Amino acid sequence: MVLHRFTPQTYHNVLGTLPPALRIASGDTVLTETIDAIGNDKDGVRRASGPNPMNGPIFIEGAEPGDALRVEIVRMTPISSTGWTRSVAAANVVDPETVRTLPPRENVTWRIDRQALTTQLQNPPAGLEYLVLPLAPMIGCFGVAPSLGQAISTATSGEHGGNMDYRLFGPGTTVWFPVSAEGARFFLGDCHAVQGDGEIVGTGIETSFEVEVTLTVEKDRKLTWPRGETAEDIFAVGNARPLDQALQHATTEMLGWLREDYGLDATAASHLLGQVVRYDVGNVFDPAYTMACRVAKKWLPAKRQASF
Amino acid sequence: MVLHRFTPQTYHNVLGTLPPALRIASGDTVLTETIDAIGNDKDGVRRASGPNPMNGPIFIEGAEPGDALRVEIVRMTPISSTGWTRSVAAANVVDPETVRTLPPRENVTWRIDRQALTTQLQNPPAGLEYLVLPLAPMIGCFGVAPSLGQAISTATSGEHGGNMDYRLFGPGTTVWFPVSAEGARFFLGDCHAVQGDGEIVGTGIETSFEVEVTLTVEKDRKLTWPRGETAEDIFAVGNARPLDQALQHATTEMLGWLREDYGLDATAASHLLGQVVRYDVGNVFDPAYTMACRVAKKWLPAKRQASF
Amino acid sequence: MVLHRFTPQTYHNVLGTLPPALRIASGDTVLTETIDAIGNDKDGVRRASGPNPMNGPIFIEGAEPGDALRVEIVRMTPISSTGWTRSVAAANVVDPETVRTLPPRENVTWRIDRQALTTQLQNPPAGLEYLVLPLAPMIGCFGVAPSLGQAISTATSGEHGGNMDYRLFGPGTTVWFPVSAEGARFFLGDCHAVQGDGEIVGTGIETSFEVEVTLTVEKDRKLTWPRGETAEDIFAVGNARPLDQALQHATTEMLGWLREDYGLDATAASHLLGQVVRYDVGNVFDPAYTMACRVAKKWLPAKRQASF
Amino acid sequence: MVLHRFTPQTYHNVLGTLPPALRIASGDTVLTETIDAIGNDKDGVRRASGPNPMNGPIFIEGAEPGDALRVEIVRMTPISSTGWTRSVAAANVVDPETVRTLPPRENVTWRIDRQALTTQLQNPPAGLEYLVLPLAPMIGCFGVAPSLGQAISTATSGEHGGNMDYRLFGPGTTVWFPVSAEGARFFLGDCHAVQGDGEIVGTGIETSFEVEVTLTVEKDRKLTWPRGETAEDIFAVGNARPLDQALQHATTEMLGWLREDYGLDATAASHLLGQVVRYDVGNVFDPAYTMACRVAKKWLPAKRQASF
Repeated sequence: MVLHRFTPQTYHNVLGTLPPALRIASGDTVLTETIDAIGNDKDGVRRASGPNPMNGPIFIEGAEPGDALRVEIVRMTPISSTGWTRSVAAANVVDPETVRTLPPRENVTWRIDRQALTTQLQNPPAGLEYLVLPLAPMIGCFGVAPSLGQAISTATSGEHGGNMDYRLFGPGTTVWFPVSAEGARFFLGDCHAVQGDGEIVGTGIETSFEVEVTLTVEKDRKLTWPRGETAEDIFAVGNARPLDQALQHATTEMLGWLREDYGLDATAASHLLGQVVRYDVGNVFDPAYTMACRVAKKWLPAKRQASF
Repeated sequence: MVLHRFTPQTYHNVLGTLPPALRIASGDTVLTETIDAIGNDKDGVRRASGPNPMNGPIFIEGAEPGDALRVEIVRMTPISSTGWTRSVAAANVVDPETVRTLPPRENVTWRIDRQALTTQLQNPPAGLEYLVLPLAPMIGCFGVAPSLGQAISTATSGEHGGNMDYRLFGPGTTVWFPVSAEGARFFLGDCHAVQGDGEIVGTGIETSFEVEVTLTVEKDRKLTWPRGETAEDIFAVGNARPLDQALQHATTEMLGWLREDYGLDATAASHLLGQVVRYDVGNVFDPAYTMACRVAKKWLPAKRQASF
Repeated sequence: MVLHRFTPQTYHNVLGTLPPALRIASGDTVLTETIDAIGNDKDGVRRASGPNPMNGPIFIEGAEPGDALRVEIVRMTPISSTGWTRSVAAANVVDPETVRTLPPRENVTWRIDRQALTTQLQNPPAGLEYLVLPLAPMIGCFGVAPSLGQAISTATSGEHGGNMDYRLFGPGTTVWFPVSAEGARFFLGDCHAVQGDGEIVGTGIETSFEVEVTLTVEKDRKLTWPRGETAEDIFAVGNARPLDQALQHATTEMLGWLREDYGLDATAASHLLGQVVRYDVGNVFDPAYTMACRVAKKWLPAKRQASF
Repeated sequence: MVLHRFTPQTYHNVLGTLPPALRIASGDTVLTETIDAIGNDKDGVRRASGPNPMNGPIFIEGAEPGDALRVEIVRMTPISSTGWTRSVAAANVVDPETVRTLPPRENVTWRIDRQALTTQLQNPPAGLEYLVLPLAPMIGCFGVAPSLGQAISTATSGEHGGNMDYRLFGPGTTVWFPVSAEGARFFLGDCHAVQGDGEIVGTGIETSFEVEVTLTVEKDRKLTWPRGETAEDIFAVGNARPLDQALQHATTEMLGWLREDYGLDATAASHLLGQVVRYDVGNVFDPAYTMACRVAKKWLPAKRQASF
């Protein structure tokens, strides 16, 4: 295994076909430290500006449009003793008239115990003194250069990935992105120590991580939307507004996946999904919302091909 | 405990302030057999027409507007050897242009093994021969008479409940509905043997059940939207389109619940939900979609009052 | 012509299959005074409670499910010297975070000059002293009993009509509603002296009118959604959320209309609508939003049948 | 007046901070020929690939982030004898289940009479033989480089403008875009000979135009969304999905405009908009939908400042 230790010299607020910061072979592993959503590093030093400054792009030799980039999230190790969140539910997750009653939005600090792998509010409000949460690390924003030479803000997401803020994008998960530019050009950053569904306060617990990912090109494997696999599930991701459209994208992608890799036609796939599908809300805060269409592997037929 | 065995003489396609079919005291238990979504009973005899013919209304003495009706789903026993589903994903859960490629929609039969508590397709399509699913019974449509003397179709849902098609409405779950009419006037029907998130083929496995529910008035307990509790979670339910608005209703209701019963102000509740909330898609098929905002009880503070 | 002068003894907050308040023959004309959205009559006397108390139901002899009820709005005469509006844009028409900055909502009075047929604010805020608007009367809420024996709040709308708040529902316009109950059971009320698109402050200028309508049954004329015709246009109306779905309903209804009455297949109708269609936002405030799909009559082919 | 005749050497499928193809002074006028949405020029020669290849970028000296670029559409002259449209309503403008019934999508040709300034189908389907439409030229896609160094596909739109497909973007209209990059970097293309609201067949009548625009920097004039002015109206444009959100953006921008330039606070602006606002659907086809919030100038107070 080839391991690259990657220290960015600069950070990016878009995912696009930018000059590579690192070139690797397909199958190599990269170890890198991310900074937080507003650009602070593990020591609290401002290294870049927001939104969601990215490490990258990493150019994977041999990746071409029409391929998929497989990203195995091998490990995420917290490297800061604190993280932060916004303090109040976002205006777009409550009834519109209720927004008038929301308190002002501030940032608050969470202490991270890197031994116990837990986190708690530094100054908990009345009633939450007891709250100690286990860390559940995830990558908030990652993906590849989008199609057409686009460069898309890390505040949002699309077919190329981006700021999906989906809590299953953590250690042990494998993700596939559709390659649209030579070398795929992988970016990552904006990691969270914990995050509920929807990222409804507008943040997870924003902090710095050492992240280890293995990046592999799968030739001629056409995806439209990102796909993922955990120990228990496979899932397809749609990014759009409203949630209805994100769900349509994710479901359409899953139907294609079940057909291509599992040999299920639309009717068979419908029978299966109709009774076992799960939908997860990734984020319901960013310009594009994220919805995952997820299926437990225990309900899947055998794969027709060794596609991954 | 008082147990009423309730056999409807007629069924209803609306939830409204209709003449009571049964009158009970608060805290009584009702045992009743439901028919399926198109009106067939356990023996395949058409007893009513669709959509979703309801058993009820059950008048609970003492219930008045401003109260809540607590519904404990004690037991659901399958009483038919078959159920049915539609055969293809609904047009509104896939990308619009993809709808052109969907096969025609038919109804298919599932065999129900009432000893093993499993179900499988009677004539599985190629690739699904292996699929045997455990039963996971749920009530598709239930609720109380809505406000203003409205009578609302059992095809849809609202603040009063109705056709929410949420898979957590199963045995062991307790649900609260806001009372808007004298006697609350509880209806139920449209039970499913299994259903995935979203009811994306337009049905769960539609069949007949013997259902046992305990119905209790909680005086002066103002809800806006249905709430529920399982062994592990509490949840609030919003019914609307798009999913975004259903989520707003559910989240707003949960913020209210956390304030009233758990003493968390908007900031504290936001801190908690932001990191631990789960959203479930009830249905994404009916005229109103359903989204649940769910929190694991292990993360909640102690309740301030013995409100239920 | 038979003219009925109709003075309600009671008002209704739902559209449903209620006992008739008046029975007329098809083709008769009804003259009635409406009260405002919160139930005040022309003299400021509270006669009923909100939302949108309705005059009706008017039973039209011979109307059966599967027919259409044609409603010609012959005349609307203002009968009060004042009207009122809410004072601030509704929370759901501005960006969610902007809601925090909106001033509190109050009711303000407009003076109505029944000679000049104009209206102006009684106490205009700085900068609006000049504003004098011509009256543009419209019926905010009207329609027929919905299907399935439903009774639906006058706060919202559906296939049966209801609270559509569309400014083209004024004098000179003819409207068709799908009949779902014996006698059609026509209701009307909630008239506005003026209203912009969308009813974005949550009201038009709410006041009392004397309204004259001619009600005629068109046998065996199946509509799904309300349709209308002015001197210059025909339009179909969809009621739903989000606006996207209201637009889908209205467009689908218009495609059907162009096929049935004008002989245009889906391709020909698409060619026409693609270049000449206009969409109007009825309301973007009520539980169901309203969108009209409108076509100028000058672009239409000759009708194939004397259908109306 | 300085007039630049601009003939692109290359075309772009994104709006971004690309190297200038032309540099002009603020207030200069540019005359250029556009090609159609798939890259065909006036003679039917494929000059570029889709989507919506753009002429530009035009660098306007002195434009900096925080300024506005004023674009006066002086003239649009058709330069081709044909245009084309898609033949059937898009899947996303009809009810989802109706999509199954739509005929296949083809491209059809319209003849353009450049003397009479009219257009008609080359091979009209039965029933549309009579249809001759006056030309109503408009720019489908134009705008400036977006913020953050983004490069955004010409298939979609955003705060920077882009593929808004709004029929009021024609000769005589003045448009303002928010400047996010040095020189503003103006792009234009994708002109339509005619287009209904919503671009519901996925195209207007796509053809080539000679377009004359005058481009002027307005210093320190912060817009969030594009604004426009015709002889009769002012309007603000929002681009997003669903239409509800596009409407929110447009309304919020208009409230800001009325405050800044017309001295109306939120209450006064609400009084005005509530009774006179008009909403236009730009497109309801592209990835981002477009909604305009429009006000007739006859209802506006005097401007407080000579801001444009």
